[in-house]
Amino acid sequence: MKEKEFINIIKNTLESEYIGDDCAYLMDLGIVVSQDSLVEDVHFKKEFITPFQLGYKSVMVNVSDICASGAKPVYLTISLSLPNDIDTDFLKEFYQGAKTACSVSFSGESVKIVGGDITSADKIYISVCAIGDAKGRNISSRKNAKEGYKVVVSGLHGSSCAGLKLLMHGKSEPKKFIKVHLEPQAQVELGDEAGLNIKTPYAMMDTSDGLMDALSAIANESGVLLEVDFDKIPYDKDLEKFPNWQDMVLFGGEDYGLVAVVPQDFDYGTQIGIAKQGLGVDLNIDGKTIHYSKQDVENKIFNHFN
Amino acid sequence: MKEKEFINIIKNTLESEYIGDDCAYLMDLGIVVSQDSLVEDVHFKKEFITPFQLGYKSVMVNVSDICASGAKPVYLTISLSLPNDIDTDFLKEFYQGAKTACSVSFSGESVKIVGGDITSADKIYISVCAIGDAKGRNISSRKNAKEGYKVVVSGLHGSSCAGLKLLMHGKSEPKKFIKVHLEPQAQVELGDEAGLNIKTPYAMMDTSDGLMDALSAIANESGVLLEVDFDKIPYDKDLEKFPNWQDMVLFGGEDYGLVAVVPQDFDYGTQIGIAKQGLGVDLNIDGKTIHYSKQDVENKIFNHFN
Repeated sequence: MKEKEFINIIKNTLESEYIGDDCAYLMDLGIVVSQDSLVEDVHFKKEFITPFQLGYKSVMVNVSDICASGAKPVYLTISLSLPNDIDTDFLKEFYQGAKTACSVSFSGESVKIVGGDITSADKIYISVCAIGDAKGRNISSRKNAKEGYKVVVSGLHGSSCAGLKLLMHGKSEPKKFIKVHLEPQAQVELGDEAGLNIKTPYAMMDTSDGLMDALSAIANESGVLLEVDFDKIPYDKDLEKFPNWQDMVLFGGEDYGLVAVVPQDFDYGTQIGIAKQGLGVDLNIDGKTIHYSKQDVENKIFNHFN
Repeated sequence: MKEKEFINIIKNTLESEYIGDDCAYLMDLGIVVSQDSLVEDVHFKKEFITPFQLGYKSVMVNVSDICASGAKPVYLTISLSLPNDIDTDFLKEFYQGAKTACSVSFSGESVKIVGGDITSADKIYISVCAIGDAKGRNISSRKNAKEGYKVVVSGLHGSSCAGLKLLMHGKSEPKKFIKVHLEPQAQVELGDEAGLNIKTPYAMMDTSDGLMDALSAIANESGVLLEVDFDKIPYDKDLEKFPNWQDMVLFGGEDYGLVAVVPQDFDYGTQIGIAKQGLGVDLNIDGKTIHYSKQDVENKIFNHFN
């Protein structure tokens, strides 16, 4: 049973028009809403991440989804389930981390944590709900890519995956990769620019599950072919020292970069490709073109339900 | 370490004006938001509750908080973490239950499930975020009770606790108590009437943690004494067959009734008492008056962190 099959069952059971994008756009209320969870031993290990970083990352992961919608992140609620042996220092540091992530400038204002709940559990579970203000914004959908649009990205790709690999192998250098994995930065600027300035429908997603996952989702939901040049994808050159570093750039998760497929006259982010007639992703890499169908990409991606 | 101490640490760390009520009122967006979690072996046991009931209850628990704010429940997101051995039938039934709870009439319209996420975990963990439309509504706060106001309730008190006791003792009768525990009903009407018709500040809470918990929270946050007559509290007379049945009425959780402290001219719900000068709760029971300070009530309440 895979995560995407589960999501299909949910869609079919609910017959909801909303399930699909990472954020639901509630047009009547002028908001977008998103919810994402972090589970101990699935998404993080206590020995690798400090309570401060866990609070920080829990916020950023959700803020990233709001940024990918083109809305302005404004409010969060946090539901925290903790083992009974967790002490008050953990709690203080977790919320200090969460508050620090909130105070990173989003259009000049802090995101506010306004509620949630706290319960006990065997392991640490964190579920954050984020609300974005959609008023005066053009909200993205992964269904909105069109032939002739360009593919742009922001952020560096593969660094978080490198950080995770280092941690799992007991290494502490290079620190920059580990820091990116534990304290990711949402790509506020590209989200803001797109939401405020693009006047036609467009597609945007974060790369929480990897760059190719986002490209494939947009391509297949929009019914277009995205042709992408590997050499144009921004990544840290020190990645090249890792085995399979190209796969890390393409399939590594948790970078929280943004991918947008936007009209040609939108002048923000790094262009890595173009949307054409067809379906899926054509990747130009090492002098060859490799076609990735939806299934090809799903087979490659690390899946929590594998 | 107790839940309320944890909440104080969170309040102090965040210095947030929002943390306090079960719902946060986001005035600029015209919404209220609430998030509550259900954790396997803390809030429910798999052998006592069907997947349908679990989906149903997860929704109702959160809808109840929105009703207690006086807003209109409109949207939900659900974050679900599941062990890898959970099958597709579980998922289908869970969402059928959730959908059924959503279709219970709230001011004539269904609540919509619009998003969330799904991950793996060792145990079942459900976190629901609920959004209520606050436009044209007077939103309650537990700080808003005033001397001279009356105390009104809706729903029957103690039934859910009776249902839980039956389940824990392997009994299946009376079914009505078990049903109320597994498929609670949010008190939509009182919430709606209060939100739409009361013109001055008022207090309202649900009884998710018990009737006395709600009375005590309102009394102490508002700085008033609530004098309550036990004999006026609505409960199912079959409760009287249980040992300590009066404690079940007063302290039993998960009934999802509503308690409101409202102006005298509000004509809805069952009046059980009055707000006076003083602090805490004066309970008239068996011909005596027992005073409950905030600490007295906290000591009595089942606490997940004990």
